[in-house]
Amino acid sequence: MRVVIIGAVACGTKVACRLKRLRPDAEIILIDKDNYISYGGCGMPYYLTGDVSHIDELRRTAFHVLRDDRFFKEVKGINVLIRTLAEEIDRKNKVVKIRYLENNKIEKISYDKLVLAVGSIPKIPPISGCDLDGVFTLSNLHDAIKIKERLISGKVEKPLVIGAGFIGLEVVEAFGESWGLPVTLLEYFPQVLPRFIDPPLSRIVENHLKKKGVNIILNARIKEIKGKNGKVIGVQTEDKFYPADLVLLATGVQPNTEIAKKAGILVSPITGGIVVNERMQSSDPDIYAGGDCVEIKHLVTGKGVVMPMGSLANRQGRVIATNIAGGYATFKGTVGAFILKCFDMAIGGCGLNLESSRLEGFESATYALNIQHERAHFFSIGCSYYALVFDLRTSKVLGFQTVGPYTDGTLARIHAISSILPFKPQIEDLVSLELAYSPPFNTALDPIHNTAHIAENIKYNRFKPISWDEVIEKLKNNDKNIIIIDVRNPNEAKELTEKYSNWINIPYEVARTQIRNLPKNKDLIVICSVGARAYEVARWLDAEGFKNVYVPLGGIVLPKSWGVEF
Amino acid sequence: MRVVIIGAVACGTKVACRLKRLRPDAEIILIDKDNYISYGGCGMPYYLTGDVSHIDELRRTAFHVLRDDRFFKEVKGINVLIRTLAEEIDRKNKVVKIRYLENNKIEKISYDKLVLAVGSIPKIPPISGCDLDGVFTLSNLHDAIKIKERLISGKVEKPLVIGAGFIGLEVVEAFGESWGLPVTLLEYFPQVLPRFIDPPLSRIVENHLKKKGVNIILNARIKEIKGKNGKVIGVQTEDKFYPADLVLLATGVQPNTEIAKKAGILVSPITGGIVVNERMQSSDPDIYAGGDCVEIKHLVTGKGVVMPMGSLANRQGRVIATNIAGGYATFKGTVGAFILKCFDMAIGGCGLNLESSRLEGFESATYALNIQHERAHFFSIGCSYYALVFDLRTSKVLGFQTVGPYTDGTLARIHAISSILPFKPQIEDLVSLELAYSPPFNTALDPIHNTAHIAENIKYNRFKPISWDEVIEKLKNNDKNIIIIDVRNPNEAKELTEKYSNWINIPYEVARTQIRNLPKNKDLIVICSVGARAYEVARWLDAEGFKNVYVPLGGIVLPKSWGVEF
Repeated sequence: MRVVIIGAVACGTKVACRLKRLRPDAEIILIDKDNYISYGGCGMPYYLTGDVSHIDELRRTAFHVLRDDRFFKEVKGINVLIRTLAEEIDRKNKVVKIRYLENNKIEKISYDKLVLAVGSIPKIPPISGCDLDGVFTLSNLHDAIKIKERLISGKVEKPLVIGAGFIGLEVVEAFGESWGLPVTLLEYFPQVLPRFIDPPLSRIVENHLKKKGVNIILNARIKEIKGKNGKVIGVQTEDKFYPADLVLLATGVQPNTEIAKKAGILVSPITGGIVVNERMQSSDPDIYAGGDCVEIKHLVTGKGVVMPMGSLANRQGRVIATNIAGGYATFKGTVGAFILKCFDMAIGGCGLNLESSRLEGFESATYALNIQHERAHFFSIGCSYYALVFDLRTSKVLGFQTVGPYTDGTLARIHAISSILPFKPQIEDLVSLELAYSPPFNTALDPIHNTAHIAENIKYNRFKPISWDEVIEKLKNNDKNIIIIDVRNPNEAKELTEKYSNWINIPYEVARTQIRNLPKNKDLIVICSVGARAYEVARWLDAEGFKNVYVPLGGIVLPKSWGVEF
Repeated sequence: MRVVIIGAVACGTKVACRLKRLRPDAEIILIDKDNYISYGGCGMPYYLTGDVSHIDELRRTAFHVLRDDRFFKEVKGINVLIRTLAEEIDRKNKVVKIRYLENNKIEKISYDKLVLAVGSIPKIPPISGCDLDGVFTLSNLHDAIKIKERLISGKVEKPLVIGAGFIGLEVVEAFGESWGLPVTLLEYFPQVLPRFIDPPLSRIVENHLKKKGVNIILNARIKEIKGKNGKVIGVQTEDKFYPADLVLLATGVQPNTEIAKKAGILVSPITGGIVVNERMQSSDPDIYAGGDCVEIKHLVTGKGVVMPMGSLANRQGRVIATNIAGGYATFKGTVGAFILKCFDMAIGGCGLNLESSRLEGFESATYALNIQHERAHFFSIGCSYYALVFDLRTSKVLGFQTVGPYTDGTLARIHAISSILPFKPQIEDLVSLELAYSPPFNTALDPIHNTAHIAENIKYNRFKPISWDEVIEKLKNNDKNIIIIDVRNPNEAKELTEKYSNWINIPYEVARTQIRNLPKNKDLIVICSVGARAYEVARWLDAEGFKNVYVPLGGIVLPKSWGVEF
């Protein structure tokens, strides 16, 4: 059996290595246009930060063996053709036409099974100047090397990143923290990580970026990248010119499907990914596809999506190898689990965010917000923020997001939710999760539990949530119909009771008896630090017959974490 | 509605507080024999370490309010009777007889609903000397205060702990690390954490304890605790006398069911816990029970168990409150998730360990073992060890255990597995888990994936596992029928190839071609550092027609982590 694999980074090499272990007799030919193969692409930002000291560290096994073409050939017995372009697939005759980039020679290679692991290509924004010297993408090791060389040369003084997605946020940390450079970040959408997290959390990240010295511009409408003598000098938006001597385009990727399309293999007109079944077979059953180039099923919406993640590529490669070897394995889809580090923060999520939920037709999608230490207070390393997106009508869990200090605690909560999300849980299933506890690791009720409890309280109308945006708007407009009941300690409340005539302090400790005299014809907005005491006081108000009682989701710590000054 | 709750630590106070929020009109009476109520009992070892500076830190809310009886009464409107013993329940008349411990006055209180949250009592070993001065348990704040006072007094020079369970392991850290004392740990079973983790991992913990200076004695057969003038002077086992001036009995707890039994409420003769249904109702539907005193269902075995965990007590309290308030909530059971810190290590698990699996009738239970960094190598904080217990016949996942450096990464893996364990997953479901990845948090394939892959390889007979114990035994006996094929680098293998004539080095990089000449009539045992390269070489040997090829689970790093000297 001869198996030809096009693409040798994550999915392709995983197919090759596992297949060789399952079927040592299989003849495997691994083709890649690059000379660098089998590397940890997700580590590239950390080559820029310096956590990875040499680019080869991204190419080595855990045992320090360099995974180059020689390694695959000599150690593993897998044929590798580097610097070789797969140009065409003749499906009828089961032949791939390849071109050796060193000498432009063309050859035809027959296959029994073919694997397309051709990855993605960066999306380049449709503006002029993207080809100027000093404008980069970060889509392979050559890019990473060039950017680092430029940084080392000392010629970079004003780096600018376009796009506040995963790569963008990881790279501003490198430029800002590791290289001490004043970095500008431009984002088209009104938030960082659009479609991944929602504004209550994205604003926390944005404020963190500002505190770290990042000049972050949201809603940026870029007109062009400007140059002088062929070199980049800055970026022009509709509003302003941002000088820059290095510009990184971190505007996402799209599936690389050129060869598949040319061969008549089905490519989704909606997502642009190669269509595969659960066994990762394309529309031609002898041709498998996996990694960034395929469309997979989103397990919350049931629809096709493209999800370019190294972890998924590895798992898909394993499925392909098992199936080619004669076994039976499936890849059922994705819940879109992600995690990233951004300066001192960890950001993670899975499922749909609120915006995506509504776009996907979950009209009654809403969210619960929880703020808490993720360990016992005497082991705490700071507050984390958790948002649970759920369908108010059906109680279905749609997604979960968290931001907080850089700790694996973030991973723990995403691991739990992404593990059960394929089982289509309801809020009640999160309430019932068993999550290990001892004080150096957790609170007796996990942050997931507490977030789900808040969702339940919303579902059962135990309090009326209101957004901080609305509260702030009412305060600004000097709305005489509201009274803010601040149930924190007097010393915490003082600053704002002195500033706003309708901001009054009734400390939680005495609230149960003192709330009785509040006016019944006003909207009462009960606030505290994180929301727990406010919720309880709202229940007491309810018991006293007050009707218009609201509790902002998240307590006053939330808008403060956005940088709001009251 | 009057609700009487007996017991006011974890479950009882959770019932009271939540019920009051759901039904502010409910009259709630919370009874406890102690003056300390509503405290974080799991934090007591950290009062001894000093992480918790004052005992009241275990009694405060996240907002620093002391949760004493006054707090419950004045702030929350919950009646609390401290220093009050509930002596008898008259179920027919729905009355509880109480005794005020301050003045021995007796009173009868009627109830509409009664909640038993009476907790557990320490198991005292049936030996003499347990009542000597200097012999303690750690089952409430008074114990914690007395032990700390003793430590502060400077009179403790030789502390000794009996029992290497959760409390025992947490407390030896306090004595050893925080107080710098030479601590002795006696355990009846041949391992630490019996029934929770298996020897391949428990030995790592034992070696860690030794390195930290703990004098750990397994298989200890204690005859008596010896005293002089009423004060403890040491512990006598069948073999030896261990001098000690402080002895902590950490030999477990049992459900406190005296009052339940007296009232004719059904108590399990097998587990000793109060029998409850999923709504946490006892055999008397007007009497609920929760926390350490109840029997709950183990979701892997389907059988009743007693699982005294603060996290479960809190969740059960919430279920009870919802049901009493007129809602509908259930507690379906436990998967026994746990986590603990022991010196620099994190130890976690859920489900059944191998020993328990076999005792529960899973005759073909076996385990897979994986060793790896839990983050990308450039963010690694050290190796972790993962064991997956599964049923070879049905592929059913029975349990999961991990030990490694103290990090929340341990929590992440336990969170993932404990979340899906109630869904009765098979190995393949773990292979298919979606687990978030980026280098500062994880490896592209999570340690769970890699552990499940090894389990699959065992299931499909892709290699023959052998235990290190067996390998070491064969080496000791100078077994001439085995050859150890060490596929590590020559410099790593050298020490042992020089020592053993049948220990040969064939580096992984050249193994594929060099293995051909090995003798076919010998048992070949292929080893490397963690097992990955050895597995691959074993596959090559298989392809070359070798039949008697074995790969030890875990690589040579495993016995080295036990402290084995080859």
